[in-house]
Amino acid sequence: MTDLPRRVRIAEEGPREGFQIAPTPVPTVDKIALIDALSATGVSKLQVASFVSPKRVPGWADADQVVAGFTPKAGVSYTALWFNPQGLQRALTFKDRLTIQGSITVAASEAFSLRNLNRDRAGQLAAMRENIAEHQAAGVPVTRASVQAAFGCNFQGEVTPAHAISAVTDVMTLAAETGCEIERISLADTMGWANPLHIERVVGEVRSRWPDQAVSLHLHDTRGLGIANALAGLRMGVAEFDAAVGGAGGCPFAGHPGAPGNIATEELVLLCEEMGIETGIDVDALIAAGHLAEKVLGRTLPSALLRGGSLTAFRAKARAA
Amino acid sequence: MTDLPRRVRIAEEGPREGFQIAPTPVPTVDKIALIDALSATGVSKLQVASFVSPKRVPGWADADQVVAGFTPKAGVSYTALWFNPQGLQRALTFKDRLTIQGSITVAASEAFSLRNLNRDRAGQLAAMRENIAEHQAAGVPVTRASVQAAFGCNFQGEVTPAHAISAVTDVMTLAAETGCEIERISLADTMGWANPLHIERVVGEVRSRWPDQAVSLHLHDTRGLGIANALAGLRMGVAEFDAAVGGAGGCPFAGHPGAPGNIATEELVLLCEEMGIETGIDVDALIAAGHLAEKVLGRTLPSALLRGGSLTAFRAKARAA
Repeated sequence: MTDLPRRVRIAEEGPREGFQIAPTPVPTVDKIALIDALSATGVSKLQVASFVSPKRVPGWADADQVVAGFTPKAGVSYTALWFNPQGLQRALTFKDRLTIQGSITVAASEAFSLRNLNRDRAGQLAAMRENIAEHQAAGVPVTRASVQAAFGCNFQGEVTPAHAISAVTDVMTLAAETGCEIERISLADTMGWANPLHIERVVGEVRSRWPDQAVSLHLHDTRGLGIANALAGLRMGVAEFDAAVGGAGGCPFAGHPGAPGNIATEELVLLCEEMGIETGIDVDALIAAGHLAEKVLGRTLPSALLRGGSLTAFRAKARAA
Repeated sequence: MTDLPRRVRIAEEGPREGFQIAPTPVPTVDKIALIDALSATGVSKLQVASFVSPKRVPGWADADQVVAGFTPKAGVSYTALWFNPQGLQRALTFKDRLTIQGSITVAASEAFSLRNLNRDRAGQLAAMRENIAEHQAAGVPVTRASVQAAFGCNFQGEVTPAHAISAVTDVMTLAAETGCEIERISLADTMGWANPLHIERVVGEVRSRWPDQAVSLHLHDTRGLGIANALAGLRMGVAEFDAAVGGAGGCPFAGHPGAPGNIATEELVLLCEEMGIETGIDVDALIAAGHLAEKVLGRTLPSALLRGGSLTAFRAKARAA
């Protein structure tokens, strides 16, 4: 009845998501400490910085120092974000420490595209064409198709499955024209509009149309349905998720007070592991990293599991009794 | 592929769950105001008080005044809890305002039974036999079979589906012997151990064995999986849920710091309504009641939807644009 994967790969985005909206500046040394704590939990993919304009995202003014400072762990793929040639060049300075791959990103909502990307779809596709050329000139593969606001938009309202498919189609067409080999299609519920049936419809259609690409979900827990949406994704065979420790983060341009965060990595790990799906992540180490994240960010993060704790100690105690 | 119900009935337990663990006493008038706000949201079932020993649960010392004080709304079934003949007699004083029905309750975990009910299974069944006789003598129907700790236990550890089925079997056998017509079988994840596959297995087996009874789920969100577990229940055709506005509450005897609460009613309503399942509840009125609950209880409740807000205003604005 379901298509649950045997193993799920989670891209931990807590550092990048969390630090970009921290109300007070987080010391570089604390950012590095959190990254190193996270790499020790068993995560295989860890997004550690945004190479963006310090004017636009002051929380990442120290991206270069952070990337220079963490201790690389074998088996962990460290990634970063950038949005322009300057950012790419900054990232390339660290090609010995970072996995550097490009994305083609569009928004399924025109209204969100104008606000978040400063261009409509056509303008964004033109910008992406340039962006791809810059990556290719630098020898950087462009492997990810990314659709923002794929399930709804605070500015446009409903985003139908047809809207989302049209956005993926535009990206895949551009990829084919420019010779990019797309490995994964990432669908983002940027503003927390998705519900499980909506996830199933869109993921199902994407998988049918592009069977050779992995589907990755980037879910926000704006309205409490994030983990149910992740479950719907798992049922549709999705084996890659972005998540943020503690449920940190949120897009500062989503026009939403409180900038609600991503689904909490530790809750997604618990969901998977309890259902027999391997993540490779030690949930207790991740919960400890979540408590460190709260200390570093100076605020309580939304994750219920950080409050409730895992089942590990209860199980051990029960076995010993 | 699924057995989603067309309509779900939610029993709102926020007042009973929330007030029993409030750290400072909540004034009676505030309890009544919250009950009246909740009855205006469209909920059809509202648990308003616990007729328990004030020594054991001081937060409900004013149960009689609360029940005497709310304004009954047509179409709303007001319920209460009691655990002994004194409690039943107190409830019966209000039989013009309350829907009075009895339950047969056992725990699927012996360790939890000893701690929460002060008796093992056999002792509890004997006590329930007396309890049923008292209800029948008072002309009160016993219609609900209730299994606590049906999915796991902080003291015993794993609770297997076989444990849960054995508990339901014991209750249904006692019901048959005593002439009780059980209408619903309530399965409680009292300590937040369930995962979606576990819910499916237990609910599936209960529905197969007792096809004439409705299944009701009482889920706690101790570890962030509550709403995913509710989704699993919906897929198995469960059309009755307990929930608490804001995610208030939690069992004070569950041996867990922070007494993590029930799933948040407004998040369950959003989950259902977004998937086209009717609840009869106005999610925005319920969110407003949740904010009132936070004011009355003097603390921030765990619901993400209370922070994020519903989609209603965004949709209206998008339509108007």
